[in-house]
Amino acid sequence: MTLTGKQLIGTTESADSSETFQGVNPATGKPLDTKFHEATAAEIDRAATMADEVFGTFRDMLAERRADFLEAIVEETLAMGDEFLEIASAETGHPLPRCTMERDRAVNQARLFANLLREGSWVDARIDLGDASRTPAPKPDVRSLLQPIGPVAVFGASNFPIAISVLGADTISALASGCPVIVKAHPAHPGTCEMAARAILKAAEKMRMPEGVFSLVQGKGIESGTTLVQHPKIMAAAFTGSLKGGRALMDVAAARPHPIPFYAEMGSVNPIFILPGALKENPETLADGFVNALTLGVGQFCTNPGLALGIQSDEWDRFSQLVSERVAQYTPSTMLHAGIHAAYTDGILARADNEELLLLGESEAEADPNACEAAAYVYETTQQGLLNDPTLLEELFGPSSTLVSCGKLTDMVEIAEKLEGSLSITVHGTEADLAEFKPLLKILQRKAGRLIFNGFPVGIEVCHSMHHGGPFPAASHSFFTSIGTRCIQRFVRPVCYQNWPNSQLPLALQNENPRGVWRMIDGVMTRDEV
Amino acid sequence: MTLTGKQLIGTTESADSSETFQGVNPATGKPLDTKFHEATAAEIDRAATMADEVFGTFRDMLAERRADFLEAIVEETLAMGDEFLEIASAETGHPLPRCTMERDRAVNQARLFANLLREGSWVDARIDLGDASRTPAPKPDVRSLLQPIGPVAVFGASNFPIAISVLGADTISALASGCPVIVKAHPAHPGTCEMAARAILKAAEKMRMPEGVFSLVQGKGIESGTTLVQHPKIMAAAFTGSLKGGRALMDVAAARPHPIPFYAEMGSVNPIFILPGALKENPETLADGFVNALTLGVGQFCTNPGLALGIQSDEWDRFSQLVSERVAQYTPSTMLHAGIHAAYTDGILARADNEELLLLGESEAEADPNACEAAAYVYETTQQGLLNDPTLLEELFGPSSTLVSCGKLTDMVEIAEKLEGSLSITVHGTEADLAEFKPLLKILQRKAGRLIFNGFPVGIEVCHSMHHGGPFPAASHSFFTSIGTRCIQRFVRPVCYQNWPNSQLPLALQNENPRGVWRMIDGVMTRDEV
Repeated sequence: MTLTGKQLIGTTESADSSETFQGVNPATGKPLDTKFHEATAAEIDRAATMADEVFGTFRDMLAERRADFLEAIVEETLAMGDEFLEIASAETGHPLPRCTMERDRAVNQARLFANLLREGSWVDARIDLGDASRTPAPKPDVRSLLQPIGPVAVFGASNFPIAISVLGADTISALASGCPVIVKAHPAHPGTCEMAARAILKAAEKMRMPEGVFSLVQGKGIESGTTLVQHPKIMAAAFTGSLKGGRALMDVAAARPHPIPFYAEMGSVNPIFILPGALKENPETLADGFVNALTLGVGQFCTNPGLALGIQSDEWDRFSQLVSERVAQYTPSTMLHAGIHAAYTDGILARADNEELLLLGESEAEADPNACEAAAYVYETTQQGLLNDPTLLEELFGPSSTLVSCGKLTDMVEIAEKLEGSLSITVHGTEADLAEFKPLLKILQRKAGRLIFNGFPVGIEVCHSMHHGGPFPAASHSFFTSIGTRCIQRFVRPVCYQNWPNSQLPLALQNENPRGVWRMIDGVMTRDEV
Repeated sequence: MTLTGKQLIGTTESADSSETFQGVNPATGKPLDTKFHEATAAEIDRAATMADEVFGTFRDMLAERRADFLEAIVEETLAMGDEFLEIASAETGHPLPRCTMERDRAVNQARLFANLLREGSWVDARIDLGDASRTPAPKPDVRSLLQPIGPVAVFGASNFPIAISVLGADTISALASGCPVIVKAHPAHPGTCEMAARAILKAAEKMRMPEGVFSLVQGKGIESGTTLVQHPKIMAAAFTGSLKGGRALMDVAAARPHPIPFYAEMGSVNPIFILPGALKENPETLADGFVNALTLGVGQFCTNPGLALGIQSDEWDRFSQLVSERVAQYTPSTMLHAGIHAAYTDGILARADNEELLLLGESEAEADPNACEAAAYVYETTQQGLLNDPTLLEELFGPSSTLVSCGKLTDMVEIAEKLEGSLSITVHGTEADLAEFKPLLKILQRKAGRLIFNGFPVGIEVCHSMHHGGPFPAASHSFFTSIGTRCIQRFVRPVCYQNWPNSQLPLALQNENPRGVWRMIDGVMTRDEV
């Protein structure tokens, strides 16, 4: 496939601006061939206007047709074969197997949403039957279900060039719901984005989707993204990335004449609480698991554990020792891009200024800065040391973590109360630990979207019950998730029909329930007809 | 009951500030007896801190106990008898039967939420079972359900001193979910708020709820409300009122260091489209219904129809004539307070400057401005006249509306495309009309939270399927409703448990499903145990 570096606006390719940028191979520092054109405001306007114009057609399509579209996207994605994986690898430094894993994750996710559409109950159909004889006022027939809100802007993550980018849950769930999508390509993997977008556009053409249902725009700076979020036809935006970037765009969305929801999944420190029973049982396995979680993907997971807390004891010392040894063995590896590498290096340098923070262990092998390589670093501090340095409660993106030794349960509780919202919190313990540390667990439930027991937070299952979000700053709105089928809720709203003629209702609300979906009729769940 | 005019912070009464204000009887212009103290920042902090401290206890309580609490609130509300209704009437100019209706609506709503809690399925419990043998990675056991988010601030509406104020769906659904509530009393009915708050506090004491689960603060200016929304312990706020007030507080919430959702139900123009078939069939009934909807509650409903659109014809002229006659017969009545009365009067004066707008009819009887009385006014204009004056697409709170004659279907479509988001849009038609006007209906579904057929938007059924919200500016976030059981979703977020021990899970996620709630297990709805 030849990359053109142009905006893909429906079936039109466009390069209005002569301003260009290139992807860079972080492992070599060399720019890649294709020159990508910055999207102009006029191009973004064309994409948004077209998306708005076809919204009605796309929304009113039978859900099965959108399911077919998603499955065609799967087919076209797989059809790109290794060429797609190779460009993702070149742009991000991810080894090829990681890119394969991401691609498989993305296609399985698209299949899951196709199944969700075919099953059909996700629309939360509710019917309250009327009663003309009710006094003092007759009871109307009221029915409602979730409907798509309109064109959606998507900003993918730098760290998952395939699974949380053009082909990620944001695009797929928005298309599933019936919303046209405009993706702002990530400037660190513009070629991967272009290829993925071409797969979607090919699928759209094949399945005769209306032109404009999907567009891709490129941009290195913040202008194109800001313009997109400000566009009056855009009804919601989804973002995965840094707190700084996410918050800036949240503020743009909130300041619009007509504010729109900006669903951001942002930074997270993902603390791990290691309770005494667990520490006694299996310190080796724990240390292995922890260092693996911490270094996986060069520490570039949103659920990377940035803190581990334990109660001061011989076992904790032993655990720290084991962690130190394992970290020493970690081979420095290439990070996603020079910007992330520089931020990590700066963060590590800043840690050195903190006298209450001791370096517990670091990679023995040296990192090559010209290959954007990051070494792993683990620090240790006390409860007081942690509370004295609020930066330790913030995410440092990369293979680094801090072990915190606490005096007793109440110290842990005090730290827990100070935690910012996190995507995940992990607890290692025995059942006896859980009983003893109940006051801690109570607080942890306020602080995270997902609580993990005796496991590690990296690796997020794509399923109906998953929640990948949490209190701010983990996410911009704690009701919504960016992974799992519930994430479709970001792009819909209830529409309510009062005394509306049966024949004119959306299928899922018609008396006959032709697709046999689950509905709440007068408060009772049923698949029956009315 | 003696009113004290103090803040009710848990069981403590507090009046730190000597700055006071009084309610005013709009029918007489006379201030009412009680002096209400402005809440200070320290008082608001005490209320928020206490709410935060008891949140864990309130959240972890068996749902049945919160249901008992809601039912005790019903009891205490009813126990206040006419004294409560009389103060609401004196503060707002609402006739006593209207206050009775509101009270009954509020208690029925509280009962509905108590039933929702006892049934238990509202928590949207989802379980995806683990599979240790899956390759390449074992599948974790993942479960999630909705949990309360923390202390909630509530700002009630001026126009429903009982049903959408201290005892409204915001307070009741937040308490139902397990969130402590702090109500900022509406300054136009502070005495009604104090009485209602005392009923809630009495119920809380009787049912041994933790102190701080409910507080009331008073304030005339914007300071107390702003301070409340900015308080770091407040996790969400709900508001019903004007676009100006709602937007100002939305912006405050979005600008916090940790932004919180601000759920505002704001202005709405609630257009009515009268299609030719309906116009032919029953012009008299239509005119009766329209003028009734327009003048009900002195036009002070959020769903008051501010526009009616028809196709130019003899029937439309006849309808206009009938509306004009009925409006003439409307007896001017007292509005809620001098501020609303002045805004209405100014709006009517401004209408006179528009040369494309003709006064079609007005109340024959004169309005007494000293009794805050409003006369009804109906205007007529053309499609072009409407599009030339954007203020006609904005809400004018009071008994006034504009009839718009359109040339043909495409004119109606053009207007529909220009409409701002509305709480409701009504269509009068025959089934033949609906077929012919399909392109119009398609657009209307993008513009409102509720679509009504052959009825009128005023009077909102409290039920599971109701949606009272819509695209901005009808509401701040179109996913959420402020009326109907779905409104509890504003105060909760999914919490996800991965491989969590069964005994430590919330009841609704435990294998045994002891309360028999509906759950989604591996994508299938069931009440079975795991």
